[in-house]
Amino acid sequence: MQNSRSKPCSCPSLKLREVASMYFTMVAAFLVILVVALQGSVPRGSDFPYKVPLDPQGLLELSWNVSYPEQAVNFQLLIRDLQFGLLFGMSDRGEFENADLAVLWSDGHNSYFGDAWSDAKGQLHMDSQQDYQLLGARRAPEGLYLLFRRAFSTCDPKDYLIEDGTVHLIYGILEKPVHSLQAINISALHGGLQRVQLLKPNISIPELPRDMKTMEITAPDVVIPSQETTYWCYMAELPEGFPKHHIIMYEPVVTAGNEALVHHMEVFQCAAEFDSFPHYNGPCDSKMKPDRLNYCRHVLAAWAMGAQAFYYPEEAGLAFGGPGSSRYLRLEIHYHNPLVFKGRRDSSGIRLYYTATLRPYDAGIMELGLVYTPVMAIPPGEDSFILTGYCTDKCTQLALPAAGIRIFASQLHTHLAGRKVVTVLSRDGKEQQVVNADRHYSPHFQEIRMLKEVVAVFPGDELITTCTYNTEDRSRATVGGFGILEEMCVNYVHYYPQTQLELCKSAVDPGYLHRYFNLVNRFNDEEICMCPQVSVPQQFDSIPWNTFNRDVLKSLYSFAPISMHCNKSSAVRFPGEWEKQPLPSITERLRERIPRCPPAPEPHPAAPIALNLGQLRR
Amino acid sequence: MQNSRSKPCSCPSLKLREVASMYFTMVAAFLVILVVALQGSVPRGSDFPYKVPLDPQGLLELSWNVSYPEQAVNFQLLIRDLQFGLLFGMSDRGEFENADLAVLWSDGHNSYFGDAWSDAKGQLHMDSQQDYQLLGARRAPEGLYLLFRRAFSTCDPKDYLIEDGTVHLIYGILEKPVHSLQAINISALHGGLQRVQLLKPNISIPELPRDMKTMEITAPDVVIPSQETTYWCYMAELPEGFPKHHIIMYEPVVTAGNEALVHHMEVFQCAAEFDSFPHYNGPCDSKMKPDRLNYCRHVLAAWAMGAQAFYYPEEAGLAFGGPGSSRYLRLEIHYHNPLVFKGRRDSSGIRLYYTATLRPYDAGIMELGLVYTPVMAIPPGEDSFILTGYCTDKCTQLALPAAGIRIFASQLHTHLAGRKVVTVLSRDGKEQQVVNADRHYSPHFQEIRMLKEVVAVFPGDELITTCTYNTEDRSRATVGGFGILEEMCVNYVHYYPQTQLELCKSAVDPGYLHRYFNLVNRFNDEEICMCPQVSVPQQFDSIPWNTFNRDVLKSLYSFAPISMHCNKSSAVRFPGEWEKQPLPSITERLRERIPRCPPAPEPHPAAPIALNLGQLRR
Repeated sequence: MQNSRSKPCSCPSLKLREVASMYFTMVAAFLVILVVALQGSVPRGSDFPYKVPLDPQGLLELSWNVSYPEQAVNFQLLIRDLQFGLLFGMSDRGEFENADLAVLWSDGHNSYFGDAWSDAKGQLHMDSQQDYQLLGARRAPEGLYLLFRRAFSTCDPKDYLIEDGTVHLIYGILEKPVHSLQAINISALHGGLQRVQLLKPNISIPELPRDMKTMEITAPDVVIPSQETTYWCYMAELPEGFPKHHIIMYEPVVTAGNEALVHHMEVFQCAAEFDSFPHYNGPCDSKMKPDRLNYCRHVLAAWAMGAQAFYYPEEAGLAFGGPGSSRYLRLEIHYHNPLVFKGRRDSSGIRLYYTATLRPYDAGIMELGLVYTPVMAIPPGEDSFILTGYCTDKCTQLALPAAGIRIFASQLHTHLAGRKVVTVLSRDGKEQQVVNADRHYSPHFQEIRMLKEVVAVFPGDELITTCTYNTEDRSRATVGGFGILEEMCVNYVHYYPQTQLELCKSAVDPGYLHRYFNLVNRFNDEEICMCPQVSVPQQFDSIPWNTFNRDVLKSLYSFAPISMHCNKSSAVRFPGEWEKQPLPSITERLRERIPRCPPAPEPHPAAPIALNLGQLRR
Repeated sequence: MQNSRSKPCSCPSLKLREVASMYFTMVAAFLVILVVALQGSVPRGSDFPYKVPLDPQGLLELSWNVSYPEQAVNFQLLIRDLQFGLLFGMSDRGEFENADLAVLWSDGHNSYFGDAWSDAKGQLHMDSQQDYQLLGARRAPEGLYLLFRRAFSTCDPKDYLIEDGTVHLIYGILEKPVHSLQAINISALHGGLQRVQLLKPNISIPELPRDMKTMEITAPDVVIPSQETTYWCYMAELPEGFPKHHIIMYEPVVTAGNEALVHHMEVFQCAAEFDSFPHYNGPCDSKMKPDRLNYCRHVLAAWAMGAQAFYYPEEAGLAFGGPGSSRYLRLEIHYHNPLVFKGRRDSSGIRLYYTATLRPYDAGIMELGLVYTPVMAIPPGEDSFILTGYCTDKCTQLALPAAGIRIFASQLHTHLAGRKVVTVLSRDGKEQQVVNADRHYSPHFQEIRMLKEVVAVFPGDELITTCTYNTEDRSRATVGGFGILEEMCVNYVHYYPQTQLELCKSAVDPGYLHRYFNLVNRFNDEEICMCPQVSVPQQFDSIPWNTFNRDVLKSLYSFAPISMHCNKSSAVRFPGEWEKQPLPSITERLRERIPRCPPAPEPHPAAPIALNLGQLRR
């Protein structure tokens, strides 16, 4: 028996076809008008408040703005030294395969622009729906400006969905003329990736007080080491007797010319328990670095590439100075120097804006997520294993004021296997809202991010933090802990008014984990030593990781009671019973937001657009 | 800190807006033309080969055709006694909530047509995208014909995705004038559901031989009982000495006027081991029914509402008659009489078309899926629990001819908890194609369905059948078995050439299930009796169904080795070792087909369309 499509289907649409053809003719005519119209209305540079260099030489500079009403991002790409075109785009984690790309290419005579995608082998294809909309192109002394626009969501399954959190941007430079999109060999391109938060929150800037002062914590004329990665440490100190102030804003100070090298910077306050700290100015991993600098871990300010100034809400500021707080600060700068430039000098750092007129509330930082303990482990070879840390109703009931707290910023943190981090607020078992979510999280891009919406948390609320890990490159289990090859799942939330609650985290009950080891042992006829002298990491190490043992570990983590750390400081718990606590149960989940396809402002031809740029380069 | 959307975003689109406005004006003008054009080209009845009554009185009659090139269904709905409009639509399982609806309504003066959806509370809303496209409306002596069209997939998340297999159609009648869509109270409507296979395969009809004869197996003037559900049994017999023939086609014979009452019909052949069977003509569940009729279970033909003639592929026919096969046939008719009509007489049945000129191959029927055994169980309270039955490479290697077999039709079967059934063909661990899938399967609608594509199965291939169950209304575990409250997971595949392999099914290894009972016992500190005299259903009954025990049962079923039934008949296995066989492993899954949104042949206004139907009824 064979299928036959030859039998003509009896559709009532003969006339429909004629009319539709008329329609598409109209549409095509309209498109020509539109492109011409847009090329006349090129926006100015000031329209693009966010800016980041794409490549380590700074030849490609991306600026952008976000239109939330239109659910679209407008891009301005400055190409300083245009050769025969370039690729710019987005992909899940910065790979060149399965990427969503805007391509400008030249055959040596004519230039073209088109929306393309790369398949799993890196082969380029023209998109059937053109969603990178070219808005204009402009030659200037510094290079070519290309302006284009992209809706957050296009409903084209080949396209990248622009979401909150990290976006991995990729670029590739065409060094030879190409005669068609298909002729581009993506693997042979000179290119790279840059991580940014594209969807910056649309925050109103609070009014700043008149008595505001500034203080620059900057590295003093450092020679950037000629190696790819350097963490530079510099100790600064506040004046003696410096009274309590509120930091109300801070911004980066990046030495001109080094914009592509300064990857991220943090200012830490040292522990108050030591009267003094030694001076230091050198690499953080140097043997010369005094051990005591390890006690400078309280974050005062953090900045990463592409981020702008950080503003505290007008009711709150971050306290520094005064009795009970250390005068010593540690500046840490991550220099990313993949082209191994030599002799570059740098004096970057962070400028703090502070006031002596204290605001109504001190801001605080609270740690959510998982306790640093090996009982929370990830089997090897997992592409997306999920661990969840809880801040329970019982803890918030005890530790939060009746009027609640307001979370206004968040910094997500894992070690190298982390791929996604999401914190959700739940009330009476019903998920209320996402506190912060990064579905393309990278451990190499840990910013403090202002939230789009301030989140109010009340006594009895639950904060549930979920981390997703990839251990495909590992052959042994990854346990929780402080080591770089161990894992963490943390959301540092910035909030006010400050409370005593510093840490609201959980881990599986160790007794139930012991039952798991026992069960695995019996079910698989394997010998796993259950002797008390064997450590949890050793027990995890001896598990044969078949699908059953993996699945049952997941089941254990989503069933077994938890040990809660509801702590005033990392070692002092609030009074109460915190062992063998029931897992918070969720009866109503937040709906996955179905990406809306914006009503198309114009139809999308599946053909590239020819540009009149003159000849690019011979 | 508050969000501010008041800061004007600097988009380069002032001119864009003007141009876009021009565009939408053009579009609106075009739309008017289109509707007028379509109303002029109303197709004739012969254009709609498939037909089904929607309501038990037959007042609503749906005909349709399917255009695979355009990925759309064209509907013609005949409304015999139009009052103030009606709702027609589709939903996951026939519920009125979360349904996708075309609505015709009248305020007593004017009539309107629109695409709407109902939310989880049954409240109607106008769809932002109008995907039921009105093609025309026509008054005729027998009633109003409404013609409309719907793409399989619309990419509107509120819309139903039309897939292969069962579609639950719903209808509701508006008995009073309504002034707006929102005013319709869906819960107060007179309405109902009808299950059909909308996406009929586009099969070419094989040439029929000249010597073809027909035989009608029909019930002799039955008075349909005045009760909602009756299964009627009637025994027929072939002439004595009737030689072997091939059934090459069959079709329903439905008594005129009873189209809405005859729900489905099957003809079974009795077991050859008995020389004779008693005559019988009465309800199948009657105490008067001879027990021996239970030995008439070999399906010769099956039809259900909305189905058309069934054709065997031209190389094959279903053997009947001749030595070694019983002369006795049992006709079973399911009468569905919810309005409890009295005294309706019926002589419906099935007309067999057969030939003495045997075709090259006998067709055969093979059972895929799960063995009928309590070791395969579903915990209570599950909304979609999955069980999988395997036909392994080892069995097909042994039992199939080198040239393979061709599967051309399939009948899916579960008991009352079944919700989805899917069989996939896998080769060397890679999924090749779907044999048959019904993601809206209903145990009340079990047709033999011709496949869109004949599936070739070769020695070494694997056939994996997955059933999804809902046990939310049950408080105890549901085990596998023959009882109506036990479960099955079966795909009867119709194929040729016939082989000795009648049954290729699996179940979990009982030893591993025993380990599961043990493990649950120890992990939960519960007392589950492991004594050998306690049956598997009793052991399942004593499990406390927490999430851990549920999850681990799932893990067990997807990990533990299986016991294979690779059988010549239900009791005779092929020689070989069939216990503790490894689970087939799948290294490459079939991609979920991403529903393509067809290029819109016209834009979709979000407003209802006014119709000029005159006044409907006062």
